[in-house]
Amino acid sequence: MSSSRKRYKTTVIGGGTGSFTLFTGLKNYPDIDLAAIVAMTDEGGSTGLLRDELGALPPGDIRQCLVALSRSEDIWRSLFTYRFTQGRLKGHNFGNLFISALEQITGSFEESIDLAGQILQAHGQVIPVTLDDVRLIATTSKGKCVFGEHQIDLKKDVIKDIYFKPQPTSNPKALEHILLSDLIVIGPGDVYTSILPVLLVPGVCDALHDSLARKVYVCNVMTQPKHTSGFRVIDFVELLESKLGENIFDTVLYNTKKPSSAFVRAYVKEGEHPVLYSLKDFKRKDISFIGADILSQKIPQKVVGDKLSRALVRHDSYKTAHELYKLLKS
Amino acid sequence: MSSSRKRYKTTVIGGGTGSFTLFTGLKNYPDIDLAAIVAMTDEGGSTGLLRDELGALPPGDIRQCLVALSRSEDIWRSLFTYRFTQGRLKGHNFGNLFISALEQITGSFEESIDLAGQILQAHGQVIPVTLDDVRLIATTSKGKCVFGEHQIDLKKDVIKDIYFKPQPTSNPKALEHILLSDLIVIGPGDVYTSILPVLLVPGVCDALHDSLARKVYVCNVMTQPKHTSGFRVIDFVELLESKLGENIFDTVLYNTKKPSSAFVRAYVKEGEHPVLYSLKDFKRKDISFIGADILSQKIPQKVVGDKLSRALVRHDSYKTAHELYKLLKS
Repeated sequence: MSSSRKRYKTTVIGGGTGSFTLFTGLKNYPDIDLAAIVAMTDEGGSTGLLRDELGALPPGDIRQCLVALSRSEDIWRSLFTYRFTQGRLKGHNFGNLFISALEQITGSFEESIDLAGQILQAHGQVIPVTLDDVRLIATTSKGKCVFGEHQIDLKKDVIKDIYFKPQPTSNPKALEHILLSDLIVIGPGDVYTSILPVLLVPGVCDALHDSLARKVYVCNVMTQPKHTSGFRVIDFVELLESKLGENIFDTVLYNTKKPSSAFVRAYVKEGEHPVLYSLKDFKRKDISFIGADILSQKIPQKVVGDKLSRALVRHDSYKTAHELYKLLKS
Repeated sequence: MSSSRKRYKTTVIGGGTGSFTLFTGLKNYPDIDLAAIVAMTDEGGSTGLLRDELGALPPGDIRQCLVALSRSEDIWRSLFTYRFTQGRLKGHNFGNLFISALEQITGSFEESIDLAGQILQAHGQVIPVTLDDVRLIATTSKGKCVFGEHQIDLKKDVIKDIYFKPQPTSNPKALEHILLSDLIVIGPGDVYTSILPVLLVPGVCDALHDSLARKVYVCNVMTQPKHTSGFRVIDFVELLESKLGENIFDTVLYNTKKPSSAFVRAYVKEGEHPVLYSLKDFKRKDISFIGADILSQKIPQKVVGDKLSRALVRHDSYKTAHELYKLLKS
């Protein structure tokens, strides 16, 4: 019976914490075939060291997605998130070393991802949007240039535009996945350092236009002080459309649950605020705006040295997966 | 049928290149259950860095044994022998990092060995002779003290004695394996830095005495310039007995095949010579001396950065395994 059941190809675009959260929920649906298309512009921390010292492609976001897709024993997930804390190895993440060592041995970044996926029993594929060694550059509203994703994240100026150096070619496997999907999920995540670094790779937006998939943008639940300060849901939509053109997505999933004031206070100190919305913003006929409680405000389990330990208010993996699954079935 | 066939418990004592060679041959015999009891005094190269910087137990010899026991795909064996060649990671062996990271996460060196064995599909067990953090010290014929296995290897003086600092306690699992074995193989390998660092751990020699196993010493095929210069087969036997007492082994397997002169010339430059023998040396009634062609003098496949690439004349894995299997069956 179950073998004849329809399977839904679902592709997540973004990488980083957003994809981690979506995967954690979606991997539990047995009729969903999951894939992530991940930006290749990360150069912070352990990933940056490996790019600089070994000339490796950036493994950080890929590793995080593989861990999220993993159904292996806890120990392997712990190993792939483990960070050395002493000596010359200090700051290096073991999973990144694993992928980079395999890349050096096989000469293939994609093969190294597949092998790491085997160990982790990843239920889904993680696909680099490009296999070129590429860096991100931003121009700010003050006319300055900022080099590298890590510096863009730190920058206090408002970002005006981003581009690649050199211009990358897209990974054909990424385009195939976009064209053959039933559902494509864009975000959540930082627009400038997670979403646009995938969608601006030449060919990706065209494939997204051509795809018959349902295309859902999952809007962030909190603003970011430098990049999306004061943004409402509609502002995120219009920012993406201004960079990518219209008809990039047909559905917007946004959070309707207000975070508790204790959590909000902690975030406001960092210049971050809940993303607000007004129903009168949602006049467009070509986009379905779907509001739901998709919020998590639990204190997450601390993953040693990993980004996720900072995020207190974010998308709830299971609530968000449930809303996306409803869209697939509708 | 095959499930009722007798199985032979075989334990190899030594570690390093010698155990690697024996395992490569013996792992192909389906009715042999293999184990290695390995010295824990290594502190060269990548292993030394991990001991110094992470306070890890020495993974080097263990990793080498696991690779030799592996029946997994080539890529996993390549990964566990891979050495980083650039940046801050330069000189670090990936397999050592793997074992040390797991040791830090699980808090158990033995568990980390088991998990590495899973990935490598190791057909056999690798057992540290002690779980204490211990170093080797040698006294020389000139009355000097040499600290650490690595320095002892480099030392030009004749070694008189070795001891541990601090005095280790033996791993009970190692004693159990010695007592329950059908065959115990001692060597081949460096007497002072591979064999004695296992057999001198308190309790190990007593277990060896008490064991009903057939106990075979596999004599080296080449002398070492500082430690066993000019040694014949009988000299190796007498050296071991002078340190450990008699009745440590009942059989000596030695090589009868003369290496070709081209190989010998290359070794003589390094102060190494073939180990000679004379039948009139073998008068002892309590020991069977068995001579056979167990020599390999092929140029081995280069394993990046690994010790094995240096050894041109050594034991042939398959010939030696065949002779040991004959002893098991006799």
